[in-house]
Amino acid sequence: MNPTLTIDLNCDLGESFGAYSLGQDEAILPLITSANIACGYHAGDPAVMKHTVRRALHHGVALGAHPGLPDLVGFGRREMAISAEEAYDMTVYQIGALLAFVRAEGGTLHHVKPHGALYNMAAGNPALAEALAEAVYRVAPEACLYGLAGSALPQAAEKLGLRTAHEVFADRSYQPDGTLTPRRQPGALLTDPAEAEAQVLRMVREGRVRALSGGDVVIQADTVCLHGDGPHALDFARRLRAALAVAGVAVQTPSGLRV
Amino acid sequence: MNPTLTIDLNCDLGESFGAYSLGQDEAILPLITSANIACGYHAGDPAVMKHTVRRALHHGVALGAHPGLPDLVGFGRREMAISAEEAYDMTVYQIGALLAFVRAEGGTLHHVKPHGALYNMAAGNPALAEALAEAVYRVAPEACLYGLAGSALPQAAEKLGLRTAHEVFADRSYQPDGTLTPRRQPGALLTDPAEAEAQVLRMVREGRVRALSGGDVVIQADTVCLHGDGPHALDFARRLRAALAVAGVAVQTPSGLRV
Amino acid sequence: MNPTLTIDLNCDLGESFGAYSLGQDEAILPLITSANIACGYHAGDPAVMKHTVRRALHHGVALGAHPGLPDLVGFGRREMAISAEEAYDMTVYQIGALLAFVRAEGGTLHHVKPHGALYNMAAGNPALAEALAEAVYRVAPEACLYGLAGSALPQAAEKLGLRTAHEVFADRSYQPDGTLTPRRQPGALLTDPAEAEAQVLRMVREGRVRALSGGDVVIQADTVCLHGDGPHALDFARRLRAALAVAGVAVQTPSGLRV
Amino acid sequence: MNPTLTIDLNCDLGESFGAYSLGQDEAILPLITSANIACGYHAGDPAVMKHTVRRALHHGVALGAHPGLPDLVGFGRREMAISAEEAYDMTVYQIGALLAFVRAEGGTLHHVKPHGALYNMAAGNPALAEALAEAVYRVAPEACLYGLAGSALPQAAEKLGLRTAHEVFADRSYQPDGTLTPRRQPGALLTDPAEAEAQVLRMVREGRVRALSGGDVVIQADTVCLHGDGPHALDFARRLRAALAVAGVAVQTPSGLRV
Repeated sequence: MNPTLTIDLNCDLGESFGAYSLGQDEAILPLITSANIACGYHAGDPAVMKHTVRRALHHGVALGAHPGLPDLVGFGRREMAISAEEAYDMTVYQIGALLAFVRAEGGTLHHVKPHGALYNMAAGNPALAEALAEAVYRVAPEACLYGLAGSALPQAAEKLGLRTAHEVFADRSYQPDGTLTPRRQPGALLTDPAEAEAQVLRMVREGRVRALSGGDVVIQADTVCLHGDGPHALDFARRLRAALAVAGVAVQTPSGLRV
Repeated sequence: MNPTLTIDLNCDLGESFGAYSLGQDEAILPLITSANIACGYHAGDPAVMKHTVRRALHHGVALGAHPGLPDLVGFGRREMAISAEEAYDMTVYQIGALLAFVRAEGGTLHHVKPHGALYNMAAGNPALAEALAEAVYRVAPEACLYGLAGSALPQAAEKLGLRTAHEVFADRSYQPDGTLTPRRQPGALLTDPAEAEAQVLRMVREGRVRALSGGDVVIQADTVCLHGDGPHALDFARRLRAALAVAGVAVQTPSGLRV
Repeated sequence: MNPTLTIDLNCDLGESFGAYSLGQDEAILPLITSANIACGYHAGDPAVMKHTVRRALHHGVALGAHPGLPDLVGFGRREMAISAEEAYDMTVYQIGALLAFVRAEGGTLHHVKPHGALYNMAAGNPALAEALAEAVYRVAPEACLYGLAGSALPQAAEKLGLRTAHEVFADRSYQPDGTLTPRRQPGALLTDPAEAEAQVLRMVREGRVRALSGGDVVIQADTVCLHGDGPHALDFARRLRAALAVAGVAVQTPSGLRV
Repeated sequence: MNPTLTIDLNCDLGESFGAYSLGQDEAILPLITSANIACGYHAGDPAVMKHTVRRALHHGVALGAHPGLPDLVGFGRREMAISAEEAYDMTVYQIGALLAFVRAEGGTLHHVKPHGALYNMAAGNPALAEALAEAVYRVAPEACLYGLAGSALPQAAEKLGLRTAHEVFADRSYQPDGTLTPRRQPGALLTDPAEAEAQVLRMVREGRVRALSGGDVVIQADTVCLHGDGPHALDFARRLRAALAVAGVAVQTPSGLRV
């Protein structure tokens, strides 16, 4: 008998800031297994971090730090020419800040997932990837590092003996080398929910995804990135959970936590 | 036979930021027993925090978090009308950030001392003091909370069962109620090093300080605040250490660590 | 025959920031005569400032700078112990930043209204009020300074020969000395739109407002502060405009601009 | 008879921030003709801006805005993937902020020079260069835009009909295409003051510079960038002024202002 197939569903949370609200955290929490909580650099503030940790704990969702570039006005989405050491430093800082709220609320830090441009830069730049992995290793060695499936980030984590999760996307198309089609190119986004659902199911069950240009790519799918904003985000999350249930895929964190 | 008298010497460190250098950290480190390290809100940045933790560890100086108000341009010296909950949140955040560097470097967090206006506000405001003490208690219950001798801050720490250190000043005059003479008032500063030295020795040996207006005030002296900048700071630190040695006072942290 | 009664309707706009949206600027613009545009310290960013200046110009709404305290996470609502010189400096800076967008878009700066805690502090502190008035006087001497009716701010403006507008509130109750009832006290807010409407009409037509504790207070009403957010803000703005029209009160800026 | 040869000497000033001091502004001011004043994004704060404008006016030095990337901790030296529109927006904002202090002090804005990574990015990216030129054109059309000699930035300025100044460097070596040798490459810096002096004189008198790899490059030298920090900066500035005097080169701004 085959072992049960499993997948983690993660989502960026805690992106509000001061008087500004963003996202539908309360609505998405019951649908996911792990939360990537902003740490104050690209989004989030101490009050939001505390609240988000509490709400995620309440829902039994695994707590993750979501460090980003120091660019609040750009939401951490603009690449910056930082050195590997600067990447290490800012990641240590942000993991620590989130970890303090996790500890204060009696929880455990489950994972770290870099945000936005830092995520993208680390996927393609081994020196940055190693710096991020080193930061996790030194501050929270028990945590799991989430990174783009097949990229430099999970590789750097594995090299250090860190737990890692290969992340896949439901609504993005893939290139023949396993990277994501850049957002600005035609066909980058899968707008049909049925297609997005099918892509996830195939990645989970077969470990493959069809490249935009045709042909299959081998891919490891440990966790799927869901969105907490946008009009269709919640609908798609519900639809995907239903499809996974029908397919007999267990929704749980990489460490086996189910919600 | 009397038990040995002891005193801790603490100093604010790690106040540089980016391209900006401040203080004489390397020169003061051999003279102190505990370092209050800025956490990025009023001063310091992740690179400076890492470097300062390393240098303090190298010198065997106890590591402390030095959280401040979110006011870099004002160096955390301008009071802000924050709520107790906001004080709690920003303190948790900053302790966590520093704690991450401490952990990454293999050290232990020894204490927390609020900075500038946050320190002053907490000395006089029990609700703020309790919020700060609660933050330390939840994130680093083993740490010692430094606060103005006799003020609301050590009281709040004691109420929670936290270790606390009553802090005294060598170069500030005292009021009959044990508070510091506000800096703008005449006589607020002791400019004569001999007088400052004598004030410390008397506080340590007799538990008393003469008020500016005359008359003695009972005061508990666990730690003395030294300065790391200014032309005479290092001279005074050396002079005070010599005087303490002659007087048979051991210079060590509240937990007994000597340098 | 009596001269026509007039009133200006102002509203805080341009409070979005980066990925964060706030307010219903497009919906409120057709209902107001002057816009207070955030300048990046408590809210707003350069892109938002440019866009808001364009939209206000499109609607023929008078352009105002809305400088605040440097406290984005607190939305400029927390008082800070700044000196008069610091208030001057930050106001010059922010007026200049907004003025650049006004000039780039071919408009004219019509007024300056301090925001939140800076507004409140300037109302009660003549030194701060004079610093703000001096900033306007030196950077935009043709502009009108909006401040709490009867407070230190319009007084400071008048002393310098600056144009000024006394601001009144529809939904706040007044104290016998003409100040606003603090928000935390019972009766501070007028929740009944009919009452709020009547209060404005009486202030405009009779120059009087009934104090919360009873008795009339003389008040000069040049401009009314409307809100751009909240579920009932737009409804109240429409209702007030209708009531003013029925009463024969012309809605126009202090300088006579009508929309 | 030949017309008098002229050159402008510019220097970055006003880079202090809050409690942090940087540079030797007072010492360099008597030696230069134009000051590039930081605007609060990469360095500088409102108090420093005001003070620097006053001191430059006192010395008769031409006032320039020195806008940078929003990266205080990185001192504006790290490239960021900003769009041309974002570059326009942040430049308008910063020019306006500086312009307000210039106006408040009764001066005139003479020029704009982008800082650090923004300068470098604009030198090689025509879209960014046009955005910066457009910002100057719309906010301060009478100002002169300083940019790397021969690069996209002066070209964009000329296309708009803006005044522009081609900037050269005394202590940097050049590539055959007229760009600077990147700092990390060997031979990037001229460490011999005699060599640096000779390079400037030849650029001014002959309009040529020898490339690092040999061979002459045609270059337009309108302004030379001097440094205000480092142990040898002032010595070199004095030496260069003396050499220019001996050579009969007038030191004055592009608009003819002499100090």
